[in-house]
Amino acid sequence: MSLIPVDKIRSTAEKAFIQAGVSPSFAAVQADLLIEAELRGHASHGLLRLPRLVARIKAGVADPAATGQQSWRGSAFLSVEGQNGLGPVVAMSALDALCDRVSETGVALSAIRNCNHLGMLAWYARKIAERGKVLIALTTSEALVHPWGGRYAMIGTNPIAIGVPADPQPFVMDMATSQVSMGKLHDYANRGKSIPEGWALDEAGNTTTDAAAATKGSIAPFGGPKGYALGLGFEVLVGVLTASALGTDVEGTLDDDMVCNKGDIFIVMEPASRDFASISAYLDTIRNMPAADPDRPVAIPGDRAGAEYNRCLETGHEPDPEIWRTICALANDTVTEF
Amino acid sequence: MSLIPVDKIRSTAEKAFIQAGVSPSFAAVQADLLIEAELRGHASHGLLRLPRLVARIKAGVADPAATGQQSWRGSAFLSVEGQNGLGPVVAMSALDALCDRVSETGVALSAIRNCNHLGMLAWYARKIAERGKVLIALTTSEALVHPWGGRYAMIGTNPIAIGVPADPQPFVMDMATSQVSMGKLHDYANRGKSIPEGWALDEAGNTTTDAAAATKGSIAPFGGPKGYALGLGFEVLVGVLTASALGTDVEGTLDDDMVCNKGDIFIVMEPASRDFASISAYLDTIRNMPAADPDRPVAIPGDRAGAEYNRCLETGHEPDPEIWRTICALANDTVTEF
Repeated sequence: MSLIPVDKIRSTAEKAFIQAGVSPSFAAVQADLLIEAELRGHASHGLLRLPRLVARIKAGVADPAATGQQSWRGSAFLSVEGQNGLGPVVAMSALDALCDRVSETGVALSAIRNCNHLGMLAWYARKIAERGKVLIALTTSEALVHPWGGRYAMIGTNPIAIGVPADPQPFVMDMATSQVSMGKLHDYANRGKSIPEGWALDEAGNTTTDAAAATKGSIAPFGGPKGYALGLGFEVLVGVLTASALGTDVEGTLDDDMVCNKGDIFIVMEPASRDFASISAYLDTIRNMPAADPDRPVAIPGDRAGAEYNRCLETGHEPDPEIWRTICALANDTVTEF
Repeated sequence: MSLIPVDKIRSTAEKAFIQAGVSPSFAAVQADLLIEAELRGHASHGLLRLPRLVARIKAGVADPAATGQQSWRGSAFLSVEGQNGLGPVVAMSALDALCDRVSETGVALSAIRNCNHLGMLAWYARKIAERGKVLIALTTSEALVHPWGGRYAMIGTNPIAIGVPADPQPFVMDMATSQVSMGKLHDYANRGKSIPEGWALDEAGNTTTDAAAATKGSIAPFGGPKGYALGLGFEVLVGVLTASALGTDVEGTLDDDMVCNKGDIFIVMEPASRDFASISAYLDTIRNMPAADPDRPVAIPGDRAGAEYNRCLETGHEPDPEIWRTICALANDTVTEF
């Protein structure tokens, strides 16, 4: 299979959503999120998600027209009932409202519940940082992570993203609080590879190096007890602000037919000044510092993914053939030549 | 040395600050912070810090009377010039203002610069959660942590604390983004113990298990590249909101004579409701879940430290004799019988 121009991937993905009843403008938003994740190298949050989203629309658990019911609980606190809308549609609608409000309030927060999967949080962080604002994004997920010292999953993979304006590109970090993603465990299982000790427990709650057993069990928090504290902290923080489901009650982030009841938090903040030179200089000092391995320069989070994204925009991208065929079929489109 | 009643420790610590020119009410605040850290088992943030704070007051880099110059940059964004005030005095003054404001705005943020060391963030998180509010606290420090793949320190130990109301006690997590504290490296060095591989680099940027060499080098981020991304994310987030110093420009958190130029962020938020039963029930489910080691029940962050704190309040506490003698001398007090 050869490289497909990103414009072609984009138009096909948009068509697939439009065929499922999504408006062209919302299809563009949802497709852009998936494509950016795909091109940044996060296939688990990329085109792979498209057929599931279409299935969720068909099953009636994703409403392609909903933008969320917004109400200001306080002058800087936007409470959003997500109405089963598409994650990026509901979230960007809330973020637009926060960006308008924050010039007056300095900080503005949105607590969203009952919208679909947000996808890769880096997408939101980059967008807001490019507007000259600062973002913290948090979202919960189905319980996949075991508490430190516990035997089964009770906590979501609960990622955090931070976006800060800088030159030549914004600082964007985005990471789950799990040791690995469930997608990675499935990938190891599919390839018959064993996983390192410490990544996961099996269904009975025992440590395992068997990837297939791990997919039925639970993932370790990253970084031991600290990662556990962080992931749990995000779970209760999001839960208490959104009144969303907690722990094993969370549904609809991994299936095709359950209403998604997790919660999302966005905090938009005004920087102290419009001059980001000192932030940029600090990041450059790190980029240029002596590396432990001279062949691997010290990286700023998001730099490599961002460079890969830009490269793909120029050269095109090779999606997984099976997923691409499925998307073309959903778009009623001829499969682009392999 | 026998146990000293906590009231005696408190009155002596307060006297030591009062002798240095701190008002009784500010002495009570600063002493309470140090004592809670001490009793929660965080000696590195406990009474050990008292003589340094007194030295900083005497050196003119800590102003015992300053509460910080507060200005509302937006209706929910409190900008604070810390005026070299004592950390908990300036911070609690800001937090009181945020708690007043947040009932109207739903979220309120304070960006503080140029105040002294905040100390243990859990202290703030517990206080705010006990008022029924939610808190995120972030603070930077002198660069002690090396970027992932880098050879020297460029990032603070940059802790995060989260406080969420719950019963029977609030959820309070507080963790640095470094693998270990510098205090722990010094402790290993003093006892001639070697440190595990992966904790730190030596001055030349090479991995070391020699604790003394590590104290001259840099500490690893916890959890590898993810902990690095998190600590760096907090550094630039705090920096861009407070216009405080970044990386190796940060001073005054570890010495006796430099003005402290790090930054602090507090975000106070209103919970979705006053009913914290579902948060409390979720935390209880984790406390009671099957443990990997039946002899070690699964812990909620802060539980053990909180229990130890409560135990000490009843039984008394045994401070480090050397530090206790110093504090008694600073208080012009007779050393309590050992």
